[in-house]
Amino acid sequence: MSKPKIVSGLTDGYIVRPDPADPRLSERVTGVDETGGKVETAVVMERPLTIFLNSQEVVTAMTIGDYPEYLALGFLLNQNMLKPDDVVTGVDYDDDLAVAVVRTERTTNYEQKMKKKVQTSGCGQGTVFGDLMEVIENAKLPHTELRTSWLYTLTHKINTTPSLYLEAGAIHGCVLAQEDRPLVYMEDVGRHNAVDKIAGWMFQEKISPADKIFYTTGRLTSEMVIKTVRMGIPILVSRSGFTAWGVELARKAGLTLIGRARGKRFVALSGEDRIKFDQDLRYVEEESAKHRRKGAVDRD
Amino acid sequence: MSKPKIVSGLTDGYIVRPDPADPRLSERVTGVDETGGKVETAVVMERPLTIFLNSQEVVTAMTIGDYPEYLALGFLLNQNMLKPDDVVTGVDYDDDLAVAVVRTERTTNYEQKMKKKVQTSGCGQGTVFGDLMEVIENAKLPHTELRTSWLYTLTHKINTTPSLYLEAGAIHGCVLAQEDRPLVYMEDVGRHNAVDKIAGWMFQEKISPADKIFYTTGRLTSEMVIKTVRMGIPILVSRSGFTAWGVELARKAGLTLIGRARGKRFVALSGEDRIKFDQDLRYVEEESAKHRRKGAVDRD
Repeated sequence: MSKPKIVSGLTDGYIVRPDPADPRLSERVTGVDETGGKVETAVVMERPLTIFLNSQEVVTAMTIGDYPEYLALGFLLNQNMLKPDDVVTGVDYDDDLAVAVVRTERTTNYEQKMKKKVQTSGCGQGTVFGDLMEVIENAKLPHTELRTSWLYTLTHKINTTPSLYLEAGAIHGCVLAQEDRPLVYMEDVGRHNAVDKIAGWMFQEKISPADKIFYTTGRLTSEMVIKTVRMGIPILVSRSGFTAWGVELARKAGLTLIGRARGKRFVALSGEDRIKFDQDLRYVEEESAKHRRKGAVDRD
Repeated sequence: MSKPKIVSGLTDGYIVRPDPADPRLSERVTGVDETGGKVETAVVMERPLTIFLNSQEVVTAMTIGDYPEYLALGFLLNQNMLKPDDVVTGVDYDDDLAVAVVRTERTTNYEQKMKKKVQTSGCGQGTVFGDLMEVIENAKLPHTELRTSWLYTLTHKINTTPSLYLEAGAIHGCVLAQEDRPLVYMEDVGRHNAVDKIAGWMFQEKISPADKIFYTTGRLTSEMVIKTVRMGIPILVSRSGFTAWGVELARKAGLTLIGRARGKRFVALSGEDRIKFDQDLRYVEEESAKHRRKGAVDRD
């Protein structure tokens, strides 16, 4: 497996963070603004990646194109085509062909599985293969705690981290965190790709999910809840809102589900028992106008 | 075909508009807020709808559940499984089974087509069957005009229309408009469902696309551009941002593509020649804080 480039922060604790300066991830285009005057602006890239599991072509995903190996691994894990205890003998990525092949010791054949698909509402038409509900019923998430002081520090750090989002908008972000520290911050045009890249990274690096927090810029839909539970992470936080089924599944699985986390405010609709309200709210700032404005640009 | 309930505005020109008071579309749930105090909040529903074309099961989509007949028709049209000149002999919707069956005079068989799928970045993992690029290459969009005065009136009307979005958040909206008048405003947990419901409505009501404007709260991705071009609508407007491939396809197809349309501001990155800058910008208000706040909640 070719080692993807890891962009580490020196002082802020990130193991993987966005690289908005990477010329492959966005491009400058010209157009006109409301005055009719010519403007130049940055837009994010969107390119195909075809994922194979051994000899079987599984899907072509549209992605910004960073970390294709993690995306392939995480996609297959989150579709339950790759098992947590599978031995991966290699991940081959071919940049010209835009193909990533995950090879396992176990012989795989998902022909039947791929015939049955459910389109989910992950802001589009997410595809979930049949048996994902089992993960909710069998969930055993650990009884960790989430201090509100961590939550405020964490979201402030994430919001002020240089990112493609701040550069070009129209992109989703997901962050794997521990206490008040963001560890891995992935972005993608498809928010499920961002999740999958983190899942792939965790698999590759053998990271324990038990003491982690998962943060997403996207909505808390059923699909996002299922993926978080599958990853074994007990706490899911978003600046966006909830769907009813997302809440229902989170409650069934015992997942702590926090939404509308912006500035001082948040709402928890499941797993409230993990939350320790240790933060004196008089010392929390409302979200700055800059982030409010940027956050406002993209509803999906 | 059972006639869906049409919620008409009496004075504002809407033919179909959101019905946030419909108890089937959202529910009240309780949780805790940042103070640890109990809160009650509204969340949108998300339920499965399985779409059949004649005897063939095509997909199960997660949807809020209004207008299942339009969603089924529009989905099949936008996947190119239903042709614009197909004679639909009926659309049967069974509420208990959550199934919608579209029946055509023509015999259909899409077994091969359904094997090949591409996951797109419509904020998740949208599924596009193989041959959608043809629509870009064959596009012949009419040379209509878009006055900026229409654009400002239109977006103000949309933003102030009572909606599930203003009620519960975490939902996408799409609007079919003509000049400065919104005609049909559909919402859904999956933004592509909202598009598809409008496409289904246009097909059923035999609406000409040539003089229309399509507005979406979602990002201007390749998939959204392809769907708009397929519908034959020459102008696509969003309050969200762009992806590079969305811009490229819009330019190829000659689609007018306007993004980041919020308050006074917007950027056009394709088809600028349709825009007439007739609005005196001194008389346009910035977006109100209320809408900025609400818009900021949901990035997907």
